[in-house]
Amino acid sequence: MNPLELTGLTGDTICAISTPPGRGGIAVVRVSGPQALDIVQRRWQGKPLADMATHTVHLGHLMDSTGDVLDQAVLTVYRAPNSFTGEDVVELACHGSTWIQQQVIQTLIDAGCRLATAGEFTRRAFANGRMDLSQAEAVADVIEAQSRAAHHVAMSQMRGRYSDELKGLRDKLLHFVALIELELDFSEEDVTFADRSEVSTLARDIHALISRLADSYSDGNAIRNGMPVAIVGQTNAGKSTLLNALLRDDRALVSNIHGTTRDTIEDTVVMGGTLFRFIDTAGIRQSSDTVEQMGIERTWQAIDKANVVLWVVDVTSADTSMASDILSHCNGKALIAVLNKTDLDDDFAARSELNNLLPEGTPVVAISAKSESDIEALRNLIVETATLPDVDSDAVIVTNARHYQALTRARDAIARAIDGLDNGLSGDLLDQDIRECLHWLGEITGEITTDNILGEIFAHFCVGK
Amino acid sequence: MNPLELTGLTGDTICAISTPPGRGGIAVVRVSGPQALDIVQRRWQGKPLADMATHTVHLGHLMDSTGDVLDQAVLTVYRAPNSFTGEDVVELACHGSTWIQQQVIQTLIDAGCRLATAGEFTRRAFANGRMDLSQAEAVADVIEAQSRAAHHVAMSQMRGRYSDELKGLRDKLLHFVALIELELDFSEEDVTFADRSEVSTLARDIHALISRLADSYSDGNAIRNGMPVAIVGQTNAGKSTLLNALLRDDRALVSNIHGTTRDTIEDTVVMGGTLFRFIDTAGIRQSSDTVEQMGIERTWQAIDKANVVLWVVDVTSADTSMASDILSHCNGKALIAVLNKTDLDDDFAARSELNNLLPEGTPVVAISAKSESDIEALRNLIVETATLPDVDSDAVIVTNARHYQALTRARDAIARAIDGLDNGLSGDLLDQDIRECLHWLGEITGEITTDNILGEIFAHFCVGK
Repeated sequence: MNPLELTGLTGDTICAISTPPGRGGIAVVRVSGPQALDIVQRRWQGKPLADMATHTVHLGHLMDSTGDVLDQAVLTVYRAPNSFTGEDVVELACHGSTWIQQQVIQTLIDAGCRLATAGEFTRRAFANGRMDLSQAEAVADVIEAQSRAAHHVAMSQMRGRYSDELKGLRDKLLHFVALIELELDFSEEDVTFADRSEVSTLARDIHALISRLADSYSDGNAIRNGMPVAIVGQTNAGKSTLLNALLRDDRALVSNIHGTTRDTIEDTVVMGGTLFRFIDTAGIRQSSDTVEQMGIERTWQAIDKANVVLWVVDVTSADTSMASDILSHCNGKALIAVLNKTDLDDDFAARSELNNLLPEGTPVVAISAKSESDIEALRNLIVETATLPDVDSDAVIVTNARHYQALTRARDAIARAIDGLDNGLSGDLLDQDIRECLHWLGEITGEITTDNILGEIFAHFCVGK
Repeated sequence: MNPLELTGLTGDTICAISTPPGRGGIAVVRVSGPQALDIVQRRWQGKPLADMATHTVHLGHLMDSTGDVLDQAVLTVYRAPNSFTGEDVVELACHGSTWIQQQVIQTLIDAGCRLATAGEFTRRAFANGRMDLSQAEAVADVIEAQSRAAHHVAMSQMRGRYSDELKGLRDKLLHFVALIELELDFSEEDVTFADRSEVSTLARDIHALISRLADSYSDGNAIRNGMPVAIVGQTNAGKSTLLNALLRDDRALVSNIHGTTRDTIEDTVVMGGTLFRFIDTAGIRQSSDTVEQMGIERTWQAIDKANVVLWVVDVTSADTSMASDILSHCNGKALIAVLNKTDLDDDFAARSELNNLLPEGTPVVAISAKSESDIEALRNLIVETATLPDVDSDAVIVTNARHYQALTRARDAIARAIDGLDNGLSGDLLDQDIRECLHWLGEITGEITTDNILGEIFAHFCVGK
């Protein structure tokens, strides 16, 4: 069966601008599909494409449908299967005017191309077996990466390290299936016991591997979406001013995430090469107001999700009445006490009182968010305090929520198999759990997928990739 | 002498991102200079660059300065002199994340590159004789072009049609010089008269050619910067509303030009494939206010510069008291009478009165700028009324103000030579005028340039081109 049919794609020839949108020195238009060379030939003045060897570049002219010269362009030919998509690919580097880019796409469409949908080149690479689904997803992650860590993890995934680990797991699971089926075949000869101890060891081994991958998602999510840092404190402690002060330095790399909750503002910024996600929360105070209580409930949730908590205290009021509530919710979290508004009061009356309240060894930093003094010291402290995952180790880190979900389901399935083994369940029932485990792992690599899943994944790509 | 020294450039190796800024599927980093292959080799994991044939592409990995993999990239090698710049060039197509783009530039700089200045690749192409200066300038024009006409003219200039015409002129001028010098050599033998008639014909021929080029600038300027259309009328006729209505349709291609005059708003838009520049002017009314009179003076100037004038009349007031003033200034211009505010009054009381005032055959269109009714009819009328230059003819059109200035000076010089011929001036004085004429033509092609001129020209390029 044609692998393109498998994924719901037809074998037509697609084109798109692959470089960033807008005007530049050059822009690259990519054409992929069985007719790529023929279609471009219809608009090409220069050496015939049929005479070009794969992986060679040629200067020539692109024509519009009336035969007028559109542009001088550099054409690169990649012959199937040695291309990104695995199909015949032609890349046209033209002058980067927006007008030319539009016209080149138009003339290619007139000549028989279809405009590619988002991620369609990568989807074809997946469909043609040039990469598995987790590698294809990593292509988008590589393009999205804003920090060294996010880039490192995405590159590792794109280059197949994660796929290798999943393949290893799959082999172990198939070995498990083989052992169980051996047991079923010889069940009358009572070989069950001897084999079951080997099977049990194997199952626990698989469970440990899947668990490690699933557990790595906490780090992976922090790397990909930003290490979560909650900014909490009583009302009017200057939390929002602090958020702005923390974000200001690297504004260029700040992105706005529209929260689903009305009262929580989130924003990311790269500090010390790591992406941090700051979560500004509703101020904590005693309140009988229902709406305000809901806001405070969200603050506790933000603390739960955070890797680091900044507890902001206003030194001018030095009101620590809510301290015990806040500190009890921070139990076990990396906590930094931030004494704010030093521009108004540099006596820090709050400090001695605070020191008695804070857990032993909690770092304390005095700042003025408003006048932005000592914000740099706070930044350094946050970077030091956050336990950053070691991305340079060889361990695979899962960054994708879809993968995490599949891994937890695979872990549940293997856990059921282990339970079954412990309770002497029959081989055919165990077999069912293992096959479910294989199914979830197969969803990650794309061996088992639906058009819905693929559509969802590639919709997040940019057009032209 | 090294041509790079001539233009004040050193022979170091430069790099820049050549694709538009921002995130996309892929981005291209260009490296040019004598060390291009060596420097990229220091960061390349894959086939050695020394073994790569010119005009071939290779998949491999780019490393950072610590030896970590930065990206999987496609590398293209162009060996001198067969490259855009005429130097060794390496192009690296990497994943289009902004992070990767920054890192690739950084690692190349660490390895020995210098970040290219604006237009430096094209400047090197000029310095190395790959193109003359008018062709180099056309590269920027090609990238800027927003309309078919602007693109067509820029492409023609980039491909050397204009250069060929200037070369032809130069040959004629050198022939002129040769004839004059022949006269000087044989002056004692009294051959002056016979030769002078040939010289005179040649001079008038040259003058006609230069004049045609200089005169084409009126069209060329309209093509490159937009066909000027003045919107004039009495105060409160709805001129600004009309400007907005005219621009709305193609907002994406609108650009804001900050006027040097306080009261004139200019904006460009593409209609029917042609770039139009609409100039909204101060309303005309009898006034003794000095500032207002200055504004009205600017309105008359805008009419002078315009190819098309839209005279906007408010149908509800039907005040045509300033009509004769306005119409006298429009004498000889393509005029369109625009009856505005039909949403308030569809009786058009003004029309019959207007018809008596307007020159025979002036098109009249009734619209409502506010409710945007019949704006499309007005757009079509403007496109029909404007006398568009025939860009498809083979005639060269000058679009560049610098060239226009040089051409008018060259024309002045040849005119002086013709005067001299008519008045029997001596050969050595004629020779001086001809050499001045050659000088100004040489400034266009870059045979005669200063660092200042070059700096000025290339500063308008984007980095990476």
